[in-house]
Order: sequence, then C-alpha cells, then structure tokens
Amino acid sequence: MTSMSKNNTRELILVKGSEIIRKKGFNNTGIQEILQAADVPKGSFYFYFKSKDDFGLQLLDYYQELMFSMLDRHLDNKSLPPVDRLRSFFKEFLTFYEHNDFTGGCPLGNIAQEMSDLNEQFRLKLKNVFDQIKYKIGDTLKEAQTNDKISLPGDAYTIADFIINCWHGSLMRAKVMKNPQALNIFDTFIFTLLLNNKL
Amino acid sequence: MTSMSKNNTRELILVKGSEIIRKKGFNNTGIQEILQAADVPKGSFYFYFKSKDDFGLQLLDYYQELMFSMLDRHLDNKSLPPVDRLRSFFKEFLTFYEHNDFTGGCPLGNIAQEMSDLNEQFRLKLKNVFDQIKYKIGDTLKEAQTNDKISLPGDAYTIADFIINCWHGSLMRAKVMKNPQALNIFDTFIFTLLLNNKL
Repeated sequence: MTSMSKNNTRELILVKGSEIIRKKGFNNTGIQEILQAADVPKGSFYFYFKSKDDFGLQLLDYYQELMFSMLDRHLDNKSLPPVDRLRSFFKEFLTFYEHNDFTGGCPLGNIAQEMSDLNEQFRLKLKNVFDQIKYKIGDTLKEAQTNDKISLPGDAYTIADFIINCWHGSLMRAKVMKNPQALNIFDTFIFTLLLNNKL
Repeated sequence: MTSMSKNNTRELILVKGSEIIRKKGFNNTGIQEILQAADVPKGSFYFYFKSKDDFGLQLLDYYQELMFSMLDRHLDNKSLPPVDRLRSFFKEFLTFYEHNDFTGGCPLGNIAQEMSDLNEQFRLKLKNVFDQIKYKIGDTLKEAQTNDKISLPGDAYTIADFIINCWHGSLMRAKVMKNPQALNIFDTFIFTLLLNNKL
C-alpha cells in the first residue's frame, strides 16, 4: 500500500479520476477529462502513471486502501459483538448510498465487471482484493462462532464469500431501482436470517 | 416484444453487437465495430436503429426476450416441482458460463451497472425487466408454498428479489475468479439453505 499523504498531486488525480470513472466507467473516461477535472498538466499525469492502465491499477490500490481502512474500522471495534460489527459496516455503506441517491455503485465491483475479461492484471488484482475482504469478514464470523457461540450455517469463509457476492448484486439492483429496497433485503436476509442477528 | 424472425439483418446486428458489447461494454463499443462484425453497411444500421442509444434500448428488448423464453421454459416445466424448476434454470446458466470460461457475465446486469446512472431510459427499461423476472420467480415460489407446502423464510417476491440480486453479484465474482466457486456457493446457500431444496 502507498501512503496517500506523500504527494498531493498523485492523490488529486486519483480522487478526480475516480469520481468520473465511478459514474462513466473506466474505458469510457479519457485521460484528458481526468486532467481537466484535477486541473493538472499532462506531464503530471505521466510523472505518476506510466499509462492509463497503470493509472487504473493504481486506482485499484487506492480503492483497496479505502475499503480496508473502512472495513478494519468496523471489524476491529471490539466494543461490539463480531456480527454487529459486520452489520454496522454494511449499514454505513447503506447510509452512504442513500446520500448519493444510489448512484455510483461499488468502485471495485464496477471495475471488476468492466475489466475482468479485458485485462488480466486488473482481474488478478481484483481477485486478490476480494480474497482479502473475504478473509477479513471470515475472521470476524469465525470470532462470532468461537466467542459468541453463534451457530453458522456453513464454513465462515464461504459465508463471507456469499455475503460479498450478494452485496455486489444488491448494489447493482439499487443502482437500477434508485431506492434502498435491495440493500434492505440484503440486510434482512444476511443478518436476520442467515446469521440470526438481533441487532 | 418484437418477433426476431421478421428480419434477419436487424437480428444479425443485434447478435453481433451483443457479442462485442458483452465483452467490451456498451460505451466502449463503436457502431463501426458492430457494422464490421455484422458485415452490413451503415445505412442498414440506421434503417433499424435511430441512434446508438436506440440500438442499446432495442438490445435490452432482445435480451429480455431471450431471458423470458429461457425462464419460461424452466418455470413452466410442470414435470418438476416448482423449486426444482427454478434451480434447473440457474444450473443451465452455470453450465453455460462454464463453457464460456466464466466470461461475459449477465448482459442485463452488465448494462444495468454501466448505464443506470447515465441514461434514464435504459434504467427504467432495466428496472422493468428485473421486476418482471421477480414476478416470474416469485410466482414459482408462491406455487411451491401453496402446492408443495414449502415453508418460505419470507415473502415469495422478496425472496425472488434476493435471489436475483445474489445471482448477479455471484456472476460478477465468477468473472473475476474464472471458476465456478461463486456460482456453486450461490446454489448451495439459495437452494439448500434458504429454500431447503433436496434436488
């Protein structure tokens, strides 16, 4: 992981590029557009990024850093039982998407869908990010099983995978519906039914 | 719905365009590329489609027709109990994706993710397609509840929505993983756990 505070121009390009790409897609966004939004010259872009693909790969690292930091903030909050921590993570996202009128979707999921058949480097990086998220969520479910004696309906890491996958499909549907229904259904089925959570 | 047999040029453009768009995305595919793949002149394209957006909207109708015909073929197969019919529908998809090395994803889900924030006509059409799929799956689950006395863990149409959403996220993940794991997890959690199916 890179330190985002080390240089502001690089981060500015990533932030502005991300805003456009999240709405329009990676292939549908030109470098020129990103430069204009960040108000930096072409030379700055090529100082930090070798090519548009290199920019995309570094953008995935940037998303990973944001995602892990949010995930860890919730999952390491030992003041809550493990399943409540996980649920609060998704609740924060639900609030975020509500404030954004259910636009944008998950930046990782969007690029995964767009690029996994087109660029093997993107695919392998995304595979690894989702695997890491699975391990973090799986560890939390394991803790629920061991400490809270929660009876899980299967292997903790397989349930973690199912949760990650359902979440991404629910986000896609929320983007289409432009209301919280799909995310509320996700919350009910995953937490009330599958994990029998009483939060 | 339009009859696909009425004219072959229109269908050829839709089929060839679909093949490219499924891999590269809608915005990332040019009309010229579709014309070349279909081996038809520009005039043919504009005879059937007013614009690229009009082509995209007619492509969604075409996908809807394919999807409903496959869905109905399984769900109307009264030789199987309702939940087995639904499961066989997803099994056919799993086999299809295996044969295609888990590339492409769901054409409707891909365009939903790409276009729902960019074009309101696309979004409303996709919202309607997913709603129709929900009603078809929900009706089948209702039948399972009424005829087979299957105890559902919630409202049939809400479960149908959850199934549709989980499926799309699982397809995205399978595209990243390039193996059937996410689709097998979907099958296990939805059918063995949620619907308690013994197929």
